[in-house]
Amino acid sequence: MDSVKYTLPESKIPKSWYNIQADLRDAAPPVLHPQSKEPIGPDDLAALFPMELIKQEVSTEREIEIPGPVRDLYRQWRPTPLYRARRLEQALDTPARIYYKYEGVSPSGSHKPNTAVPQAFYNKEAGVTKLTTETGAGQWGSALSMACTFFGMECSVYMVKVSYDQKPYRRGLMESFGANVTPSPSRTTASGRAVLDEHPDSTGSLGIAISEAVEVAATSDDTNYALGSVLNHVLTHQTVIGLETMEQMAAADDEPDILIGCTGGGSNFAGMCFPYVGENLRGEKNYRVIAVEPAACPTLTKGPYAYDYGDTAHLTPIVKMHTLGSGFVPPGFHAGGLRYHGMAPLVSQLHSEGHIEAVAYDQLRTFAAGIQFAQAEGILPAPEANHAVAAAIDEALACKESGESKAILFNLCGHGQFDMQAYLDYNAGKLVAYEYPEEEVAMALSGLPSVSA
Amino acid sequence: MDSVKYTLPESKIPKSWYNIQADLRDAAPPVLHPQSKEPIGPDDLAALFPMELIKQEVSTEREIEIPGPVRDLYRQWRPTPLYRARRLEQALDTPARIYYKYEGVSPSGSHKPNTAVPQAFYNKEAGVTKLTTETGAGQWGSALSMACTFFGMECSVYMVKVSYDQKPYRRGLMESFGANVTPSPSRTTASGRAVLDEHPDSTGSLGIAISEAVEVAATSDDTNYALGSVLNHVLTHQTVIGLETMEQMAAADDEPDILIGCTGGGSNFAGMCFPYVGENLRGEKNYRVIAVEPAACPTLTKGPYAYDYGDTAHLTPIVKMHTLGSGFVPPGFHAGGLRYHGMAPLVSQLHSEGHIEAVAYDQLRTFAAGIQFAQAEGILPAPEANHAVAAAIDEALACKESGESKAILFNLCGHGQFDMQAYLDYNAGKLVAYEYPEEEVAMALSGLPSVSA
Repeated sequence: MDSVKYTLPESKIPKSWYNIQADLRDAAPPVLHPQSKEPIGPDDLAALFPMELIKQEVSTEREIEIPGPVRDLYRQWRPTPLYRARRLEQALDTPARIYYKYEGVSPSGSHKPNTAVPQAFYNKEAGVTKLTTETGAGQWGSALSMACTFFGMECSVYMVKVSYDQKPYRRGLMESFGANVTPSPSRTTASGRAVLDEHPDSTGSLGIAISEAVEVAATSDDTNYALGSVLNHVLTHQTVIGLETMEQMAAADDEPDILIGCTGGGSNFAGMCFPYVGENLRGEKNYRVIAVEPAACPTLTKGPYAYDYGDTAHLTPIVKMHTLGSGFVPPGFHAGGLRYHGMAPLVSQLHSEGHIEAVAYDQLRTFAAGIQFAQAEGILPAPEANHAVAAAIDEALACKESGESKAILFNLCGHGQFDMQAYLDYNAGKLVAYEYPEEEVAMALSGLPSVSA
Repeated sequence: MDSVKYTLPESKIPKSWYNIQADLRDAAPPVLHPQSKEPIGPDDLAALFPMELIKQEVSTEREIEIPGPVRDLYRQWRPTPLYRARRLEQALDTPARIYYKYEGVSPSGSHKPNTAVPQAFYNKEAGVTKLTTETGAGQWGSALSMACTFFGMECSVYMVKVSYDQKPYRRGLMESFGANVTPSPSRTTASGRAVLDEHPDSTGSLGIAISEAVEVAATSDDTNYALGSVLNHVLTHQTVIGLETMEQMAAADDEPDILIGCTGGGSNFAGMCFPYVGENLRGEKNYRVIAVEPAACPTLTKGPYAYDYGDTAHLTPIVKMHTLGSGFVPPGFHAGGLRYHGMAPLVSQLHSEGHIEAVAYDQLRTFAAGIQFAQAEGILPAPEANHAVAAAIDEALACKESGESKAILFNLCGHGQFDMQAYLDYNAGKLVAYEYPEEEVAMALSGLPSVSA
């Protein structure tokens, strides 16, 4: 039988991350201060992040060296395997060649440790002893908790209350790594108290939890903030995924025609696709690149490319991105990692310049795809990853229709073993299709900040 | 930094399993018919198993070739990584060298697919279209469900009722693989009805669930039975673990002084240790080999080596093994995979002949070890695997005491991501220590069958 798995030796873990800012046609639009609405400088971010990460945020160097201690920790689970989905191809009876990179082999089950480890490292180097963050589904909170315990740092996680109540197992994992987990909104911050005073029964949102974590970091000396997606340096750290994949595709003696990733904040999509998009930007290649988002939170396909806040309390800087409005609370579909009103500025810019496509899928279609994938390949994907699976299956079926044998590559960013309630509900026919919440989005977009830039 | 992970290329997946029956000093004691109590022949098992597996059960060939289609499916997750636990060594400040083989990278999260896949394969080859089995914690049921979907077979799982109710997520995984899951005892079998008529509120046991699955297989033409541990052929299939580890230890330029595995039915312990025990039996080496079991179900350390039934309804053959009595229902500690009254006959024989040691640990000690391991190594072990972790830590601390630098190797047979309720309870201080249930065992042992052999 032909190969199904392409592994790499530890020596092939990339020595540098790829920074797509080096290859952008236009420089990224400036980031604005939340009050003054003027462009901010490095010092404005120093209360939240160590200077090394702030430098990476604005760097236009193509390669950013991965520190030795970070590569040493990457070796716990990297290089991750690239699979040829031969049994899925057979089940679909398609001439397409389907490949997937599997990030679920990391100890916390997703791609998130790729950036959690370097973020903890740079903070530790800068003398920071404690990190705060927010988490929705819990993938990011778990990853940062693990990274902090590796470096002997404290970790405090604001977990969206609805997830805190519905996903106690993710909380159990974070606590087992020694983290302190607080349901958000909480009374531990002014942002949280303001929400609770107005809505005592608030179940929280990612935007509120970000406000709480940012507030704690901004008002304490020993504590910094860490974000699991959206920011440039986060996307850059994730490019180990795509860089490894390029080596593995070469070992497979193949090259992708189509690249696919799911998008919430944009980090796993960017991690897989940016090294390839870079080749497109430099005129070397012409890959088709598709971002897949939930129909109920369709940031790229429905949101304008506009300046907006990253959080609900408007404590974060204003960035130019595809957004549904910082006040938008997405409906309760199961892909918690995709329930964010905004999109990474770099992903947004590439989309606005026509370098990537975007499609939106309803959750029922994505769970059907996830089950079909599991029965063929054995791995039950995270609900977020099911979006990428669904698009890959549709492209493979289009090949069957046209008779073309294209190579389709997608990022399977995590496994679904912490998301079994969603699968139980889907298998029992209890999941509903969520439509695009047009009115709620229109209302949230009416609150976009007016900026002169 | 020195290596932390030893991987192998796909070409190093073993081409044969190792069958320890070739190296036993004394032949294994005969298996007896449950009614006649006379030694059984292959035909007595033909209602339950395909002939290829029955042959393996009694084979004394040292090497049993792994069929091509099985090796092809093994490639999905094999070879699994061997880790040097350098961060744990550092945390313990021990001169010991600690290694662990990690079977949690399989799609269902444990070592169980190593035998589920060949069992499904041989049944499929024999024209069987449906398999039934029992499952406690759910690791085995998940693995067999996955193997059946790979081969296009139906799978029906009797799940111990207390687990069915408390662990719906494992059921969700099995159903996602297309399996049919029934809480046991059920009214679908005579064995189940007998239990329910006497105890309508029965929460079930592994012994009862085995009776139900065996009854279904024995009374239908198209359905066979599959067992996830205990039997000789199951232990043989698991030796891929130890055979790969030998190659990896050679790559590490090291050799274990002490081998450790947790024991419920015995399959993950045997999988890691039998290839090494074989070297001992042949007089080539002198490894120390330690089986670790729960203090509340201490089959090897407290149970006699005697003939007993494998199930509650006494439908299975009678085998000679360490046993606590087929009527013994272990208390509700969290390592569900270790809650079995018996022990694999081959493991029992090796213990009775003095080739392996056994120790028993209380669950509180094992969870403390699991948390310490997770905070150092990032992987949260399954409650079963925590028993091996605890013994490895104790041996490493003994090295610290004595100043010796021994190499300690253990099998980390699965991850704990489906066992988070146990960790939540442990972290909240809600877990209790279970003592050895001496009276219940004495009562169960009074029901041992009298056999002349």
